Amino acid sequence: MSRADGDEGGGGSSETAQQTEEKTPEGKLLGKLSATTSSPGWTKVSCPCCESQRVEPLVLVKLGEKVRPETKRWLMRVIGAPQKDGGAALLAHPGEDATGDIIVLSAPRCTLLRATEELGLCKTYHSGDMEAFSYNDRDNFNDSDNMEAFLTLAERQYIVKYELDGLRAQRDLRIPGLPDSCTLQHRNNIWQKLGSAGVIVDTFPLHNPEQLKELSEAWYSGNQLAQPLDSVNSYFGSPVAFYFSFLDFYTWSLLPPAILGLSITYFSGEAQKEMDESVSGSPVQSVEADSGPVVGGHMIQAVFSMLWSTVVMELWKRRSSTLSYRWGTLHLAERFAEPRPGFHGDLGVNAVTGRMEPLFPEWQRDVRMALVSVPVVGLFLGLVVVGMLCFYWGEAQVQQLHTDWDSLLSQTLLYMPSVLHIVYSNVLATVYRRVAKSLTEYENHREESAYEKHLTAKVLVFTFFNCFAVLFHIAFFKQDVPLLRKRLASLLIITQLVNQVTEWTESEDDPPEDKFRNQSTLPAFPGLFAEYIELLVQFGYLSLFSCVYPLTAVLLLINNLTEIRSDAYKICKLFQKPFTPPVASMGVWRIAFEVLSFASVVTNCWLLMLSPWLQELCQEGGLTGTNILMLAVLVEHLLILVKVVLAVLIPDEPDWIRKKIEHIEFTSMQALREQKLHSEKS
Amino acid sequence: MSRADGDEGGGGSSETAQQTEEKTPEGKLLGKLSATTSSPGWTKVSCPCCESQRVEPLVLVKLGEKVRPETKRWLMRVIGAPQKDGGAALLAHPGEDATGDIIVLSAPRCTLLRATEELGLCKTYHSGDMEAFSYNDRDNFNDSDNMEAFLTLAERQYIVKYELDGLRAQRDLRIPGLPDSCTLQHRNNIWQKLGSAGVIVDTFPLHNPEQLKELSEAWYSGNQLAQPLDSVNSYFGSPVAFYFSFLDFYTWSLLPPAILGLSITYFSGEAQKEMDESVSGSPVQSVEADSGPVVGGHMIQAVFSMLWSTVVMELWKRRSSTLSYRWGTLHLAERFAEPRPGFHGDLGVNAVTGRMEPLFPEWQRDVRMALVSVPVVGLFLGLVVVGMLCFYWGEAQVQQLHTDWDSLLSQTLLYMPSVLHIVYSNVLATVYRRVAKSLTEYENHREESAYEKHLTAKVLVFTFFNCFAVLFHIAFFKQDVPLLRKRLASLLIITQLVNQVTEWTESEDDPPEDKFRNQSTLPAFPGLFAEYIELLVQFGYLSLFSCVYPLTAVLLLINNLTEIRSDAYKICKLFQKPFTPPVASMGVWRIAFEVLSFASVVTNCWLLMLSPWLQELCQEGGLTGTNILMLAVLVEHLLILVKVVLAVLIPDEPDWIRKKIEHIEFTSMQALREQKLHSEKS
Repeated sequence: MSRADGDEGGGGSSETAQQTEEKTPEGKLLGKLSATTSSPGWTKVSCPCCESQRVEPLVLVKLGEKVRPETKRWLMRVIGAPQKDGGAALLAHPGEDATGDIIVLSAPRCTLLRATEELGLCKTYHSGDMEAFSYNDRDNFNDSDNMEAFLTLAERQYIVKYELDGLRAQRDLRIPGLPDSCTLQHRNNIWQKLGSAGVIVDTFPLHNPEQLKELSEAWYSGNQLAQPLDSVNSYFGSPVAFYFSFLDFYTWSLLPPAILGLSITYFSGEAQKEMDESVSGSPVQSVEADSGPVVGGHMIQAVFSMLWSTVVMELWKRRSSTLSYRWGTLHLAERFAEPRPGFHGDLGVNAVTGRMEPLFPEWQRDVRMALVSVPVVGLFLGLVVVGMLCFYWGEAQVQQLHTDWDSLLSQTLLYMPSVLHIVYSNVLATVYRRVAKSLTEYENHREESAYEKHLTAKVLVFTFFNCFAVLFHIAFFKQDVPLLRKRLASLLIITQLVNQVTEWTESEDDPPEDKFRNQSTLPAFPGLFAEYIELLVQFGYLSLFSCVYPLTAVLLLINNLTEIRSDAYKICKLFQKPFTPPVASMGVWRIAFEVLSFASVVTNCWLLMLSPWLQELCQEGGLTGTNILMLAVLVEHLLILVKVVLAVLIPDEPDWIRKKIEHIEFTSMQALREQKLHSEKS
Repeated sequence: MSRADGDEGGGGSSETAQQTEEKTPEGKLLGKLSATTSSPGWTKVSCPCCESQRVEPLVLVKLGEKVRPETKRWLMRVIGAPQKDGGAALLAHPGEDATGDIIVLSAPRCTLLRATEELGLCKTYHSGDMEAFSYNDRDNFNDSDNMEAFLTLAERQYIVKYELDGLRAQRDLRIPGLPDSCTLQHRNNIWQKLGSAGVIVDTFPLHNPEQLKELSEAWYSGNQLAQPLDSVNSYFGSPVAFYFSFLDFYTWSLLPPAILGLSITYFSGEAQKEMDESVSGSPVQSVEADSGPVVGGHMIQAVFSMLWSTVVMELWKRRSSTLSYRWGTLHLAERFAEPRPGFHGDLGVNAVTGRMEPLFPEWQRDVRMALVSVPVVGLFLGLVVVGMLCFYWGEAQVQQLHTDWDSLLSQTLLYMPSVLHIVYSNVLATVYRRVAKSLTEYENHREESAYEKHLTAKVLVFTFFNCFAVLFHIAFFKQDVPLLRKRLASLLIITQLVNQVTEWTESEDDPPEDKFRNQSTLPAFPGLFAEYIELLVQFGYLSLFSCVYPLTAVLLLINNLTEIRSDAYKICKLFQKPFTPPVASMGVWRIAFEVLSFASVVTNCWLLMLSPWLQELCQEGGLTGTNILMLAVLVEHLLILVKVVLAVLIPDEPDWIRKKIEHIEFTSMQALREQKLHSEKS
């Protein structure tokens, strides 16, 4: 084994490698690695300043079962080689032995620092401000000699992935131990190629048991009201932290509408009782009872929630930019970095950075989106509508059949349309997800964030449409407010119950050590899409149909308080730790929430107009149907105007953040001039 | 006289000043100054590199009649002193003699170059790209040794004003020849103080007769179709150039709606004729004739113009950013420069630039706007409505009186309400303009552009409201489409006639030399507000009520073709040359046009719904009034959605401009890192 190690380490690292006569049993290896203070077994980096560091295992690479030792050795050499030689400048450890199917990766200080600069992360300068990190100026940044304090765990792990994704063949190359069909061509992405050749089965970041324990104690084990967002950011990265921050912010901002909803329900209940007493038995009362609580309260609730949603989203933008400043992601430089691994195009000079890289013209992407993506997405949305119409048609047919025959068979048939519709919807959703992925891949976005944005937007539109098509149909075509109310209440309560049950069934007491060893057997983290879409659908129930069911906010508030815990538990315990790129906001989701907030004005005005109470009141006041409609349109336009004005007037970032940003702009402008002076002198 | 000159030049400049034994007659002085190749009579600057330059007279300062020679000498000394000594580092010339009431100013090379950097102007780098100018790197910019090629005349003149506005007393100071009440306090703005003390009556840039002649020949003397926009920019500066570029762009973009309008009128005329022939004498025909051309065409026209306006504004944004790049104003650094002269606040450290200057908290400005400006503006808008209501009430009263009495007196009285309303409107507008000015002054904006923006926005809202209140009243309350059409047509035709007449009465043949000598007697240029508001009101007629009168675009197109010439003539001949700060766009006006473009959807859908043709058609098709309204609302919402999507999809700047901007961001980010490296090493 020591011989194999020596081979694999390559020239410079053979001595270090030979010192590691590892005989530890498999299970304790990782534990031992993380506790190690010297660095036996690790490949060596040429950079002298990184040599005597404690090596922290960051990422685990799982190889295919049939991978031969020479391939593994070659791979470790590539990972360990300096970047100028086409390597990733990382540290690799062969795991239990040179033939085993894992490689453990870490990153030396210089690689981490250089990547921090490349990613455009901001760190605390000695002046106390957050400033874009500069490798040359590293000594003026706090903690830049201690990587575990300087970078968060999530950042360190992401940087490892970033370097791996950036590995490209510098010339045509045969990979040792693989058939000739897997030859690397010049500029091929090595990690992608190895993945498709089956050499690499999985690459995932490792949990840190102590930190995880601390985090879970502070997060969901006790009865805390506040979430430890900074710790979440440092352990799971900014996308996860933004999700939980938004969940937190949104949950607390549900308080005002919840209180309003409760009091309206209470007072209208009182009013109802009085009315019952005074006019008991009259037909008017039964209509009222059917239409739920008095609609005057609903109107207040609706207007309040329409304005509330804009204020909440504007305040969230401010909170979001504050968090982004705090977490150092306000000046990400993704545009200036290498393109994402899947990006392809003709080699050329990037007009912005002046570097040689694949280029893909913007207009071509636009054409692909306009002529392929949009029609395909439209087709799928059409299929949703077709499905819904078939369902209604089928239901009517079956109903008719049942009244005609009234047998056991016809009774069973009653369920058929629903079952078929559910199956159809699910198949459609699965197919759509794949189609959306290949469409987005085909659009060939340069940046990972753009890819994510377009993919999310596609799936989002479809999922939302799928969820709300039936409700919109009831509201706008059937115009049946009581049915809408029933449907909404049952949807809310079912979601609630499902969440509670999930919460209860999750046993929290299994020791984390057991799971740590089996991390590679855990399922990969499915991403935050499902969590966000749940929030968005909730927000849709709340804002789009707020005037129908005033207790929505109360139910959602209770739901979300448990949601925070169950989501936190899920991400901590049930999945592999995800790689999370640093992000500056929650991205396209914010836009989705804002769009909903404007759409809600239209639906609410419409629903209020339909309400029998208002209709009656207006007819008593001598208003015709046209007048009511005109009034509703007027109110709608006014509300939209007020919302637009509110959104424009509330600045998207707090004053002090704006000043910090302007300060950075100013200093970089100054620096540009200085640089020209220097280049002139030299 | 030579003695006086010697005194006034101060220490360093006395020799040069003594050489100039000027005995030239008053009138030819300016001509002689501009032709001079050495620099006799001018104050001298300490900077050696600027010494042997040809001095070009840029700006004329007119002093009060009672100003004493010692005050003039002191003023010239301040103007000529270097900036580190609290001077403006400009060149001054006493005019005909030391006791005369003018000072002619110019700027040496170094002052111009430093101000170019401070203003953040972009200039052509040796690579051919536009880059933010840097004084230290001046040798790498094209033409940086020849100021008349490097900077435009407008820029050179603005820089003189910029330096004068920046003059602040460095300590408490008595001004020679003025009473003690005019003592300057530390940090007082010298130019403002001298203006209010009556020492300086006027400061304005001088015309350059040859350039003006060339410009006017290329601009409006011949039968050119295209305007020499680059020459306009270089002679009059970017605000004027942006106005004329927009006028140009907008005029040509009127072609499609004009052609559509013409063909609709033609074809509906045909249809009308046929109908007349078939059903002559029937009552249906007279209704049709009253409602003007067939409404189906109107509907096409309306939908077209609603989408057209969004496309035009989006394309204008792209054109505007291209022009801004071309004219070097894409990266203006106003935020990083000194605050505007009228700005006041407590001295403190600017968080962005780190310089000591007056600070005024943002929230305090917000409070002032919310609690003072908004209510006052609202009050004036209310007064407009009150005036209109009084006018209608008065008209009804007088009408009644006339039918009751029917005398000559009552006939005269018929005109009273109109006359009173016109007087009231004018008085209100005049008062409002002053109020708006002091409100904006009170809001205490730091940047000149912000001040301009808020002032323009205030006057704009009022003027627009004033113009359109009557039309809106007719459209929405009286719901009288034929009256609206008549009113609109007469408004358009009257504007047209007024413009043509102004054009004819302007004699173009008086020699420019005569006027050049009398520049100080010309009225000051009133700014572009009146021109822009005329365009905006036009655009309002066109877009808000496009479905009522399809020939609007045709009339406007003809009008604008003459408008370009008359506006060009006005600015060239009838006024003093204005000082124009470099600007990157047409500012708040673009927003006004965009708001109108969205408002137009609402008005057009409403007017279409009111049209008798549609009403009849729908009733034939069995639709009730409510159905028609619902359809109109649906169409309106769809159109707004399409407009929003269009506005989002069309990028605001062309791809190549975006890349240039990103390139500058990238290089300044790189430079910031380099700078840190250098500061670390030193």
